[in-house]
Amino acid sequence: MAELSVFRCISCDINYNINEIRYRCDCGDLLEVIHDLSAVIPNPVEWKTSVESDYGDIPFRRYQKVLFPSLPHEHLITLQEGDTPLYDVSPHFSQFGALHLKHEGMNPTLSFKDRGMVAGVSWANYLGCEIVACASTGDTSAAMAAFAGVAPNMRGIVLLPKGKISPEQLAQPIASGALTIGIETDFDGCMRMVQELTQKHKIYLLNSMNSVRIEGQKAIGIETLHQLKWQVPNWFVIPVGNAGNISALGKGMRELYDLGIIDKLPRLAGIQTEGASPLYESFKSGYSPLTPQQAKTTKASAIQIGNPVSFKKAVRELKHFDGVIETVSETQLMDCKARIDRLGISICPNSAVAVAGAMKLRDADVIQEKDEVVVILTAHGSKFSNTAVEYHQDSSNKFANQTQTIAPDIKELESVLKL
Amino acid sequence: MAELSVFRCISCDINYNINEIRYRCDCGDLLEVIHDLSAVIPNPVEWKTSVESDYGDIPFRRYQKVLFPSLPHEHLITLQEGDTPLYDVSPHFSQFGALHLKHEGMNPTLSFKDRGMVAGVSWANYLGCEIVACASTGDTSAAMAAFAGVAPNMRGIVLLPKGKISPEQLAQPIASGALTIGIETDFDGCMRMVQELTQKHKIYLLNSMNSVRIEGQKAIGIETLHQLKWQVPNWFVIPVGNAGNISALGKGMRELYDLGIIDKLPRLAGIQTEGASPLYESFKSGYSPLTPQQAKTTKASAIQIGNPVSFKKAVRELKHFDGVIETVSETQLMDCKARIDRLGISICPNSAVAVAGAMKLRDADVIQEKDEVVVILTAHGSKFSNTAVEYHQDSSNKFANQTQTIAPDIKELESVLKL
Repeated sequence: MAELSVFRCISCDINYNINEIRYRCDCGDLLEVIHDLSAVIPNPVEWKTSVESDYGDIPFRRYQKVLFPSLPHEHLITLQEGDTPLYDVSPHFSQFGALHLKHEGMNPTLSFKDRGMVAGVSWANYLGCEIVACASTGDTSAAMAAFAGVAPNMRGIVLLPKGKISPEQLAQPIASGALTIGIETDFDGCMRMVQELTQKHKIYLLNSMNSVRIEGQKAIGIETLHQLKWQVPNWFVIPVGNAGNISALGKGMRELYDLGIIDKLPRLAGIQTEGASPLYESFKSGYSPLTPQQAKTTKASAIQIGNPVSFKKAVRELKHFDGVIETVSETQLMDCKARIDRLGISICPNSAVAVAGAMKLRDADVIQEKDEVVVILTAHGSKFSNTAVEYHQDSSNKFANQTQTIAPDIKELESVLKL
Repeated sequence: MAELSVFRCISCDINYNINEIRYRCDCGDLLEVIHDLSAVIPNPVEWKTSVESDYGDIPFRRYQKVLFPSLPHEHLITLQEGDTPLYDVSPHFSQFGALHLKHEGMNPTLSFKDRGMVAGVSWANYLGCEIVACASTGDTSAAMAAFAGVAPNMRGIVLLPKGKISPEQLAQPIASGALTIGIETDFDGCMRMVQELTQKHKIYLLNSMNSVRIEGQKAIGIETLHQLKWQVPNWFVIPVGNAGNISALGKGMRELYDLGIIDKLPRLAGIQTEGASPLYESFKSGYSPLTPQQAKTTKASAIQIGNPVSFKKAVRELKHFDGVIETVSETQLMDCKARIDRLGISICPNSAVAVAGAMKLRDADVIQEKDEVVVILTAHGSKFSNTAVEYHQDSSNKFANQTQTIAPDIKELESVLKL
């Protein structure tokens, strides 16, 4: 089946064999995986019928023909990721024609990274790599370690800057059995080490430059369209850090459209924080080449990235989908987190960036009154308990919900409750 | 539809109208909800076909005829809870005929409590109660607050002992907008306050004595059987604290059996910690009446309960299902948590109690070699990051996975990796 797919350089269009362990073109630029999808899915109507599958099937298998047809089924490593909720919150946000929230925090390791890792770790398994590695302090290491943990005969290696990691960040990789190594350097130093390691040994690299992960992440958009009964919304709105997720969303939609599975393209909106906005700066000047930034500290730590790996892929998708990039402030994103959490939908600050961006684009009438909008939420709020408590305990925050203290007296309780 | 259900006292068999806001019989004992299920589901084969429903339907709606037929659909308050993974970990635990883990931590607020709250909060909504309340420091308050948060015109009230709550416990109720009140008393004092409050006012009580929640929790077992294509395992194993979850599991199975949907009953095993084992003590002496205990501190904090509310219901189910009760030590439960986490399946210490109990019962040949076993996992490990880090950083723990620190030197890294 592997002949169905090739690696292709995004700059010079050179093809490489998909069975090569390779992350970049000889020219140095990123690769992407190109499939002969029309050979796999000659009839889009039949494909749509085929995905109305048995109760309990997992999304990666359900959509695999369009996600990654070259992966033999017997090499699949899954944690039953996906089939995440799509919440219709339109009644609470009547300024939109419709507002849906796709909650990728409801994956096994509580972030969207599981969608890419099912592809990446399964591919490592297919290639016969018994060690997978990444440099990461957050969701990437959590997801990689968990999928390596469930794989037979596989070990995860996580490189981290020594002494800069919180218990919340450490807990997931170590609990999943990854060999977790603190290095006396900064994050860039860890990244250089993991690249050197994976070049020298048969160790599979699962950082963002690995283009196989993108193929799994396409499932987020495809599953959303399935949940919407293949009615394409006007917009998908998504937070942008390394720009892999927006690239995956666009690639998946393009492929569905080219196959005739959908007959309309959505627009894409990528949202960044004001202090980490290299894609926004490029967009404003008609997609000028990337000028790396020193990203400023933000509560949306997962997208605090000044030099996005998948910049070129993202720009290509944004152009194809008539996309826009917007930025939001720390106050806007934290207020938006509070508003969505308030609906019982617990989200991370990065997800809130996308929601806040959708609001801002609607206020500016870029997203129009009748438009149907899907916002991708990327991780669960439980990874950010302290962030939530700090917000709500500060009465100067717009949506703060402060605790109160009373004596054990029913009259005092009734008085607080205005009964 | 409400005439399909009544409240019935578990002691004196008196019936009460289901539309009454009532939590206990006049005799003081607990109520349970009894449905005329054979009127709702005259044909079990047709029912089984009906639950093979459209992609994207939620479990509460899918199974509602057997869960709670009296609730009108328009009053349903849902967060798309359920459809949680059932992991087959048999290859890692070959001492069992089969070992499946049902991960109820993959619900929206990351615990099984969402299964009961969809019923409880929806019923409050049906009854026209605009305030719901509970005394809780953990998963119950998180779930109640979230469902109240997504309901139109509803407010949650959470009573907590002042100053004894961690940020992790506070974050969920306050973020979901519950009025969270610290009271200068202990947990029992909070419980007395919330009961007095809900007796005096039209405020719906959602603590464990509320028998409506049990009807929603029945979905855990029913969905598991559906995932197993209605093949009944030999055992369900479940952690026991207040004993509501084991009561719900039993009630749901009894109802399926009585309807002819399943043709065999599983056995039930309830697992407690050694320091909080009132049900175990009763079981050992042929189900003697409850002797409340002063529960000892355990990492499995959610089941650190010496006086379980649903004791009588649990004993009835245990007798009906040829059940057993076992206890496990702190070391056994924490080692078991490490073993399951290691497979990429992140679990809470309470879930680990059940897994450890299953191992112990297998070692003692109570669970036999060929037996197929389902263990119910009750919450996600991410609520216990610090617990995991502490375990893994202590090299005296059997499955500790310690971090290592090295200089930024590839040779040193290769040496650590034995390459």
